[in-house]
Amino acid sequence: MTGQFITFEGTDGAGKTTVLNQVVDEIKPALGKQLLTTREPGGNPVSEQIRKVILNKDETDMDDRCEALLFAAARREHLVKIILPALKSNQLVLCDRYLDSSIAYQGGGRELGEKAVLDMNQFATEGLMPDTTIYFDVPVDVGLKRIAKHRSGEVNRLDLQEHDFYVRVHDAYDRIAKRDPKRVIKIDATKPIDEVVNQVLSVLYKRAGNYFNKNK
Amino acid sequence: MTGQFITFEGTDGAGKTTVLNQVVDEIKPALGKQLLTTREPGGNPVSEQIRKVILNKDETDMDDRCEALLFAAARREHLVKIILPALKSNQLVLCDRYLDSSIAYQGGGRELGEKAVLDMNQFATEGLMPDTTIYFDVPVDVGLKRIAKHRSGEVNRLDLQEHDFYVRVHDAYDRIAKRDPKRVIKIDATKPIDEVVNQVLSVLYKRAGNYFNKNK
Repeated sequence: MTGQFITFEGTDGAGKTTVLNQVVDEIKPALGKQLLTTREPGGNPVSEQIRKVILNKDETDMDDRCEALLFAAARREHLVKIILPALKSNQLVLCDRYLDSSIAYQGGGRELGEKAVLDMNQFATEGLMPDTTIYFDVPVDVGLKRIAKHRSGEVNRLDLQEHDFYVRVHDAYDRIAKRDPKRVIKIDATKPIDEVVNQVLSVLYKRAGNYFNKNK
Repeated sequence: MTGQFITFEGTDGAGKTTVLNQVVDEIKPALGKQLLTTREPGGNPVSEQIRKVILNKDETDMDDRCEALLFAAARREHLVKIILPALKSNQLVLCDRYLDSSIAYQGGGRELGEKAVLDMNQFATEGLMPDTTIYFDVPVDVGLKRIAKHRSGEVNRLDLQEHDFYVRVHDAYDRIAKRDPKRVIKIDATKPIDEVVNQVLSVLYKRAGNYFNKNK
């Protein structure tokens, strides 16, 4: 395995996806086919079917452990069908959310236990962790205000959450960052977007410099 | 929890389901609402949706670990929504397949490892095991001949398996029976059906006698 696997994590409203799009616009011209940008479930047919079951708003009473197992199942397909082939062909893989999201959202947010969710997910990932994780840190209230501002009329099951839930998610992310400081780089996502984009770019140049240098 | 949880296990073609139906015909008049007969996914809406994803014959390349996680997710919903409420209201629950099926089929048959599949499933079951498991033992060749005889024209993804697969499944069931002789009662399912039905009835009278005695 010779590629680089970099994940983007954070609570809803951290601006992750917006920043990731700008970062890709910036680096895509230089990297071309060496770059894969993806997010779970990543367009894989099986994973997309699983996602539909999770998001089905008629099923608001889905058991939390069932939900966590479905996320892990979708993660497995995405990993095997999308991420691993890219890493094997030496690509730089930027992935919007991965295992840490389950630890934070199901383990912390839904209180299933961070270790229990990690252990169960090891069955899905066979221990494959990102080389680097960029954690977009914003206070819960800032994130929630951003979500409210951008939220359209459409409501799905995952929107029916509460403030306390996001506090637990945020706390879990903080613990992940503290537990694994070599892998997880925390950036201040309250800053103006151009500044956040620059922070991310400098992490990429540092952690995946070989992709950029050889193109100079 | 005061009910009794009894599962029926075995390789395809062991005659489990046919025998279970006859057994239920026999005991239902005496037990009435004290009896719940079910099978995974058991008619639960979320589990049925998950089952559709698993059985989708367009997806023959579904990753084996993804499949195992989906079975565990469906099991969780069935356990929480169907089995646990019945046990809490003191019912006798007869369930066609449960956790042992995953250990045998995914752990053994698909070679994911019996311990790994058990550990992952503990996340789904929180350790809830049946009080008694009736294991229908038939040699692989006998089971496969029975399947071929009864198979209709419709093919789904799970039918596309081979002889070696069923040998591994059978071996795994044998190991489960040896590991847990108090819980797992092995019966010879090559015998004529009436004899197998009687074997099962005598296990039920012995293991769940209180349900029958008080009705006499």
